Amino acid sequence: MEKEAIRSKVKAARLGKKLTIADVAKVVGKNPTFVAAALNGNHRLTPDEAVKVGQLLDLDNEIVQSLSRFPVRTDLPNMTDPFKYRLLEIVGLYGDSLREVANEMFGDGIMSAIDFTVDMEKVTGSQGETRCKITLNGKWLEYKTF
Amino acid sequence: MEKEAIRSKVKAARLGKKLTIADVAKVVGKNPTFVAAALNGNHRLTPDEAVKVGQLLDLDNEIVQSLSRFPVRTDLPNMTDPFKYRLLEIVGLYGDSLREVANEMFGDGIMSAIDFTVDMEKVTGSQGETRCKITLNGKWLEYKTF
Amino acid sequence: MEKEAIRSKVKAARLGKKLTIADVAKVVGKNPTFVAAALNGNHRLTPDEAVKVGQLLDLDNEIVQSLSRFPVRTDLPNMTDPFKYRLLEIVGLYGDSLREVANEMFGDGIMSAIDFTVDMEKVTGSQGETRCKITLNGKWLEYKTF
Amino acid sequence: MEKEAIRSKVKAARLGKKLTIADVAKVVGKNPTFVAAALNGNHRLTPDEAVKVGQLLDLDNEIVQSLSRFPVRTDLPNMTDPFKYRLLEIVGLYGDSLREVANEMFGDGIMSAIDFTVDMEKVTGSQGETRCKITLNGKWLEYKTF
Amino acid sequence: MEKEAIRSKVKAARLGKKLTIADVAKVVGKNPTFVAAALNGNHRLTPDEAVKVGQLLDLDNEIVQSLSRFPVRTDLPNMTDPFKYRLLEIVGLYGDSLREVANEMFGDGIMSAIDFTVDMEKVTGSQGETRCKITLNGKWLEYKTF
Amino acid sequence: MEKEAIRSKVKAARLGKKLTIADVAKVVGKNPTFVAAALNGNHRLTPDEAVKVGQLLDLDNEIVQSLSRFPVRTDLPNMTDPFKYRLLEIVGLYGDSLREVANEMFGDGIMSAIDFTVDMEKVTGSQGETRCKITLNGKWLEYKTF
Amino acid sequence: MEKEAIRSKVKAARLGKKLTIADVAKVVGKNPTFVAAALNGNHRLTPDEAVKVGQLLDLDNEIVQSLSRFPVRTDLPNMTDPFKYRLLEIVGLYGDSLREVANEMFGDGIMSAIDFTVDMEKVTGSQGETRCKITLNGKWLEYKTF
Amino acid sequence: MEKEAIRSKVKAARLGKKLTIADVAKVVGKNPTFVAAALNGNHRLTPDEAVKVGQLLDLDNEIVQSLSRFPVRTDLPNMTDPFKYRLLEIVGLYGDSLREVANEMFGDGIMSAIDFTVDMEKVTGSQGETRCKITLNGKWLEYKTF
Amino acid sequence: MEKEAIRSKVKAARLGKKLTIADVAKVVGKNPTFVAAALNGNHRLTPDEAVKVGQLLDLDNEIVQSLSRFPVRTDLPNMTDPFKYRLLEIVGLYGDSLREVANEMFGDGIMSAIDFTVDMEKVTGSQGETRCKITLNGKWLEYKTF
Amino acid sequence: MEKEAIRSKVKAARLGKKLTIADVAKVVGKNPTFVAAALNGNHRLTPDEAVKVGQLLDLDNEIVQSLSRFPVRTDLPNMTDPFKYRLLEIVGLYGDSLREVANEMFGDGIMSAIDFTVDMEKVTGSQGETRCKITLNGKWLEYKTF
Repeated sequence: MEKEAIRSKVKAARLGKKLTIADVAKVVGKNPTFVAAALNGNHRLTPDEAVKVGQLLDLDNEIVQSLSRFPVRTDLPNMTDPFKYRLLEIVGLYGDSLREVANEMFGDGIMSAIDFTVDMEKVTGSQGETRCKITLNGKWLEYKTF
Repeated sequence: MEKEAIRSKVKAARLGKKLTIADVAKVVGKNPTFVAAALNGNHRLTPDEAVKVGQLLDLDNEIVQSLSRFPVRTDLPNMTDPFKYRLLEIVGLYGDSLREVANEMFGDGIMSAIDFTVDMEKVTGSQGETRCKITLNGKWLEYKTF
Repeated sequence: MEKEAIRSKVKAARLGKKLTIADVAKVVGKNPTFVAAALNGNHRLTPDEAVKVGQLLDLDNEIVQSLSRFPVRTDLPNMTDPFKYRLLEIVGLYGDSLREVANEMFGDGIMSAIDFTVDMEKVTGSQGETRCKITLNGKWLEYKTF
Repeated sequence: MEKEAIRSKVKAARLGKKLTIADVAKVVGKNPTFVAAALNGNHRLTPDEAVKVGQLLDLDNEIVQSLSRFPVRTDLPNMTDPFKYRLLEIVGLYGDSLREVANEMFGDGIMSAIDFTVDMEKVTGSQGETRCKITLNGKWLEYKTF
Repeated sequence: MEKEAIRSKVKAARLGKKLTIADVAKVVGKNPTFVAAALNGNHRLTPDEAVKVGQLLDLDNEIVQSLSRFPVRTDLPNMTDPFKYRLLEIVGLYGDSLREVANEMFGDGIMSAIDFTVDMEKVTGSQGETRCKITLNGKWLEYKTF
Repeated sequence: MEKEAIRSKVKAARLGKKLTIADVAKVVGKNPTFVAAALNGNHRLTPDEAVKVGQLLDLDNEIVQSLSRFPVRTDLPNMTDPFKYRLLEIVGLYGDSLREVANEMFGDGIMSAIDFTVDMEKVTGSQGETRCKITLNGKWLEYKTF
Repeated sequence: MEKEAIRSKVKAARLGKKLTIADVAKVVGKNPTFVAAALNGNHRLTPDEAVKVGQLLDLDNEIVQSLSRFPVRTDLPNMTDPFKYRLLEIVGLYGDSLREVANEMFGDGIMSAIDFTVDMEKVTGSQGETRCKITLNGKWLEYKTF
Repeated sequence: MEKEAIRSKVKAARLGKKLTIADVAKVVGKNPTFVAAALNGNHRLTPDEAVKVGQLLDLDNEIVQSLSRFPVRTDLPNMTDPFKYRLLEIVGLYGDSLREVANEMFGDGIMSAIDFTVDMEKVTGSQGETRCKITLNGKWLEYKTF
Repeated sequence: MEKEAIRSKVKAARLGKKLTIADVAKVVGKNPTFVAAALNGNHRLTPDEAVKVGQLLDLDNEIVQSLSRFPVRTDLPNMTDPFKYRLLEIVGLYGDSLREVANEMFGDGIMSAIDFTVDMEKVTGSQGETRCKITLNGKWLEYKTF
Repeated sequence: MEKEAIRSKVKAARLGKKLTIADVAKVVGKNPTFVAAALNGNHRLTPDEAVKVGQLLDLDNEIVQSLSRFPVRTDLPNMTDPFKYRLLEIVGLYGDSLREVANEMFGDGIMSAIDFTVDMEKVTGSQGETRCKITLNGKWLEYKTF
């Protein structure tokens, strides 16, 4: 909602000044498609770039700051943002396999999502690359027979 | 498919013998609804119970064994099985929050689902309870600007 | 809606103070992902923690109180909140089996959802654990032939 | 599948004899729409009626018997059969209310669908009518904070 | 929308007075789940009960009246209210059969939904019970060949 | 399924003879699009036309007969066949209004779809036109309070 | 939206006067279900009838006029209004057949929806009936190989 | 189905000969992606190219012929083939506008899809280009009031 | 939203002047369906035409300008606008083939959508026609084994 | 389908030998979850590993070879495989921005998906990394007015 509001205010300001996206891109020194994506809230500018765009389009301060915030990318057709999508893809790719391994390891049941904690850490991989480690930890619940 | 096949063979055998679910439940010594769920492939019997049901219904060996395998519970309307569902619920409940924390910790990007490993361990909780620990570990990928 | 409003006011207050989620988590003494989930309305703080967060972020009283209310967790992709989901999962897992047992017990018909009552009690299980017992009670309706 | 097979065999037999649905209905002594629904597997005939239809259409024994079995009515557009639907309707109508009452009674959590039993009984209502009583009984699980 | 507004005003009033649903139920003399459903707009109170709730919660007149109006029950997951649902269920259960009988009676075509009238009457059944009779009456339209 | 089988056998026969749809249409004396729709099972030929197409394409007897049966038109994207669709459209257009009138006439409840009969008659309208009259007749069920 | 607004203002006015739909129908001299559909925006009154309803309910001028405008009927469950639906039904029934005939007539490609015009005319059919003729005219685009 | 069968037989033949898609593309003299699309049934080869591929992969005659037939392109995610899609896009873009113009021209009703004909012609546009003209012609049906 | 607002203001102005779409079309000199589509925001007028419509309907300046802006066509049932749809169609038609060629060229992995750039150019085709060239450029990511 | 067949044959062979997934993983020297994913057709083994698994489980040659083929990962809930998904994500993230830039560059129209070619190349990025470059090239089509 807020994203939609910022997007339409920036567009109104740009059209009011009769400036094209290409004009804005020239001031920032980047590709017009990238800049269009940033003005639409799907990418972010650096704070300096945001200030330049703000001066060009006479944007108020709050909007200028929003242009360099972390974007939540939700314009995907019928999908979630790319970060959450990777988590869903992992459930898709490994979900059946995790259940099979869990059946061998624990028996017939599930990992609770209620008696549950999650933690995220920044770790370094074997090639020196930055890696994201997410640990899911839930109580094992056995199916009750009756 | 295989589940459907077993389910309909068991039903045909039971109807052929003119036995009710309640009759089968009596032999097993459990609640009729539970036994119906087991015969429908949504719960499992113990190997002994499966043998008793097999003798009662003249089932061949392969079907008897299938009655005590780990069931994959997929009769949910428009949903996945309970094990995978908990993983999806976790994405729903913590997905936005993990992205926000990741943004603070790493910047603007995603955890790769390709340069990625997953591991599952059996651990013991602070109350002595059995817990399931799943570790997701993916390379951090930064959005490229252009 | 109200949840969305509170979520965005808390976020605005936090960004206005240039505080990270980790800063808030430190004041509360809990994990940043959990605190992020609470600020997003998917978990709740204790009243004391809510007061601390309110002082840190200069939140007005109504918002502070909302942070320790029972959350309705609805950020799940295409799903309902976890409480209602368990009820749906039960329909999925036991629905066909209940119909079969009902057919044996009553004949061809349904349990009415109109001439119907529901009741919930707190009971103690055989291991001393707290259990939730929900009783559904509906008139049996027989299919009419014509 | 089985239902589809029976439905199409009955139809083939009827067309092969150049009989209309109205002809079949006359032999049974019921309304043509009801009889059509029975031949389509959405209603059932009495065993006597099934025998009459079997003689009229030269159906083999197994099909005759299937015409008086309990039908599973699944021809609803995008829906489940009427029995399971009432259960879903109950979740829809009372789900939020049950969660609110559970929150007051137990705190913040869910009724487990894993450590869970269900039972069904035939009871008599205050007007002497037959009623169906279904008891759901699950362990209460409290959300863990971290 | 209006329903949502009333629901949230009643909730705000109740929380403002620090009253539980159980407290309200006691004043009305009914089951807490039923009263919760009424306050959520899925059931209705009698006018007397509504007045009592209004006095307890200091509700203004318009809201008190709304508590005893006929509710439109739309909290069903992905479904319509129970009244319209029965009509859809009838289409599901009898739709194919009605088309087959119509084919025999009229030929290849449809009953128009445009040159069409509908009427509803209250009638008495053979057991003296109240019945609802709905008559659909549409022009028959034959498929044109060309 | 059967429809798909007939459709693909007719197509194979036609391609085997190196005949276009236009060639078939010429023999029948109708528009190629109509004939294509008939060969695809969405329209029907007269018995005479079906015989001509059968001779042209060397079709066996069963397929020839199927070409003049009443078609069930189900190639609609995400929809049902036209006959059932009109019934759904009627529920859409008049469903809310019928509920409001029913509320005034009967009180708070539904027309049962279980204790229910349906009947179809051929009647003549005021302009002498053929009309289809469908009568729905279900027991009225009042919501129970508790 | 506007439709919803009118619908709820009319309802509020009617309830404020303690008039039933049947009362309104009597003034207009039509069936209560039809009048309910008109007040819900799914049918229209004649201008004279609208004036009578306006006087009965003290409606302001703009609402009175809206009651005799052409309604857009959109209360269908998961569907479009009846006019657009017939166009979709035509695509469903004739789409595959048109593609096959187009393949024979033009080769492998599509009719453009961009270099495209549409026209509608009122024509008279062979029985003197009014007919609606819609002409679609698009450039033929051939698939490019590479 | 047939498409799937051909696709998998061609793939099996190619893998059996240890040939890459690039190898096949070289023999045909076209781009590997286009050739892959043709082998997957989403484009077609010329008869000469099909023969060359058949010789390279030892395909039997029927498969070779199928490689140069008009493809039905249905691998689109949740969509129809491109030809039918343009028709749906036209309904989307012009549907509301056609209804408004029809309301002015005819009154309140619909164009029948039952008493209806469709015709397709090849015409030449003002720039000499080939155009596809589709004429829809249906009886106008006026809404009946009651 | 903005589109909806403009659409309804233009409609209100036109109805206030008691002008038909055909009247507006006459002033502009174009087909009524095209003009209706433009007034509904699915096509655009030239600036001169927009001024004429503005004078006819007394529209304020901002609305006049909006009538000749590039329309975003989103009235498609369950679909996206035509420009984005072509991109989705390309994924549907060539997606599997691109993966197969990529597997041969790179191995088992994906083209990153994060470490990724996109560029668009205007180029001239071999027939002198204007073409749109879009270049996607992403890092290749290999699946990690573990 | 083929994937499903292989998956179930491998599972049958493993269960027949009474071997766990962990036993198979030990022979291959990899993580059980990864090996489970490979046996389920969501990852691939090296040819050597596949031979080892084949010897352990007595698999026939064709299945052994399939275990080291490029997997098509389609077990995602309601989604496509990861390769095609990235293409859809790109349409989601850049689609609106590409349309806006195209509007500035070309005017009001679309890039054709019919008069269209696509090409894929392997290129080296500025950090020496392997990149995948996909070029889309379609004729520009201008909307026609009428």
